[in-house]
Amino acid sequence: MKDVENYLIQLQKNICDALTKIDGTAFRADNWTHAKGGGGKSCVLQNGHVFEKAGVNFSHVTGDNLPATASAQHPDLAGRTFDAMGVSLVLHPHNPYIPTTHCNIRFFMATKENADPIWWFGGGFDLTPYYGFEDDCVHWHQTAKKACDPFGKDIYSHYKKNCDEYFYLKHRNEMRGIGGLFFDDLNEKNFDHCFDLAKSIGDHFLPSYIPILEKRKETPYGEKEKAFQCYRRGRYVEFNLIYDRGTLFGLQFGGRIESIFVSLPPQANWIYNWHPEPNSQEALLTDYFLKPKEWITL
Amino acid sequence: MKDVENYLIQLQKNICDALTKIDGTAFRADNWTHAKGGGGKSCVLQNGHVFEKAGVNFSHVTGDNLPATASAQHPDLAGRTFDAMGVSLVLHPHNPYIPTTHCNIRFFMATKENADPIWWFGGGFDLTPYYGFEDDCVHWHQTAKKACDPFGKDIYSHYKKNCDEYFYLKHRNEMRGIGGLFFDDLNEKNFDHCFDLAKSIGDHFLPSYIPILEKRKETPYGEKEKAFQCYRRGRYVEFNLIYDRGTLFGLQFGGRIESIFVSLPPQANWIYNWHPEPNSQEALLTDYFLKPKEWITL
Repeated sequence: MKDVENYLIQLQKNICDALTKIDGTAFRADNWTHAKGGGGKSCVLQNGHVFEKAGVNFSHVTGDNLPATASAQHPDLAGRTFDAMGVSLVLHPHNPYIPTTHCNIRFFMATKENADPIWWFGGGFDLTPYYGFEDDCVHWHQTAKKACDPFGKDIYSHYKKNCDEYFYLKHRNEMRGIGGLFFDDLNEKNFDHCFDLAKSIGDHFLPSYIPILEKRKETPYGEKEKAFQCYRRGRYVEFNLIYDRGTLFGLQFGGRIESIFVSLPPQANWIYNWHPEPNSQEALLTDYFLKPKEWITL
Repeated sequence: MKDVENYLIQLQKNICDALTKIDGTAFRADNWTHAKGGGGKSCVLQNGHVFEKAGVNFSHVTGDNLPATASAQHPDLAGRTFDAMGVSLVLHPHNPYIPTTHCNIRFFMATKENADPIWWFGGGFDLTPYYGFEDDCVHWHQTAKKACDPFGKDIYSHYKKNCDEYFYLKHRNEMRGIGGLFFDDLNEKNFDHCFDLAKSIGDHFLPSYIPILEKRKETPYGEKEKAFQCYRRGRYVEFNLIYDRGTLFGLQFGGRIESIFVSLPPQANWIYNWHPEPNSQEALLTDYFLKPKEWITL
């Protein structure tokens, strides 16, 4: 378990270092402890040159005597002590041509005397563009596939499908973004196999995102594009507050609010009954990009 | 039931007329129908002179064969046809010195052959200031009390307590606003008594709110006050998307999204780990005003 923790702490550092280099702004780090056990470190950059708000969280919380309701899927968790740790990040750039992105790698383990430990990995990464570009989507999914391929030929398509299904706003009948990878309850073959796969996904986040960021960060934009970004960010808020399991778990668990909500956009707008002009770039987002697609075979 | 519908339609009209007179801007009215039965009329004013976004909805939806899960409190609802109707409004003014407000009057009735109808009224009104003024809170609660007093001496304190408990953000340990009235499942004495009480609350909304609006609408404000308003509006979004039963019912029922989300603020900001200066007007909001208080006896 210490290996997982070390990896996650290093992953947080690597990502913050890379983003700082791009932005020219340092992250502010807040260490915190949780009353029930454990704690974390939240690294946040606000009003940088590239990022309007970037939050990269590490947390490792512990507890004992899990309630029977902790997981319907794992009734044998009841009464165990547990460790839940993870890195979770959301990046909200200023420039509406750079997509918002989210990445998460997490590990859960519950132990009890005289019983095998119960554990699993979860996480993934996904992309939420405001203005869609096919080559960005292809690059994103190709890199995601590269992360998975050494571990089995069906893994990418399985995790991609999970991702399309998970990041979905039922009340809008709309995907949150163009997907990526999503996995949960990963416990197969053996621990090393699972840990290596989780690490591979974690390590492929920067190579998936940075080239897109670099390609789009100088694209000029005006008030219209910024307004569209703020409007679309409303969907991000809706998803995170209504559906996101990590967010809702954090709220129920009594997690550190400022760390949980660092994922929320710096600004989001709701305009009554607004719709983009037909066939505009803005309309293309929902009409074309936010439909599940096999991007890598386009 | 037709009487209730007529009252609600008239209430919507009275409120829109009064607000238009103040703002100098007409509401846009959208009539809509629901696939499962019924429909509504959403009246919305955006970017007016006083209101940044004001939505006053009327809806009357119907259905048959209620699922057994429709209400844990009313298992005898199963298999009945139902009518659910209401007026619901949220006003988001430009000026941060004018509070945001919400009012709702609703009626539910479920019928079945050879059985007594099951019905109840619900609703209330509550106030969410950004900058607190004691005299506004006292006026607000005095008028709320006036609405209830003819119907029983304990009604105001009962509905006020409900309101304090309902409009509460558990994850922030914070009230949404300074309260008002909240009632649900109102079915006591007889239909006329309940209808008259619901009407009295509906009719007292404008006299509760307008004097506060008039008193504060010329107060000068700058970027700092606007930023604080947008920051606090984040709490409004959090409440409506995480807790509000009406919003969540609407989403589950597959209601008209644009009408349901007209309650969301035109702009909301989330700033990581921001806290007001101690003892500032901004700090006073949470430290003093957003604590349950017996405003009318202050």
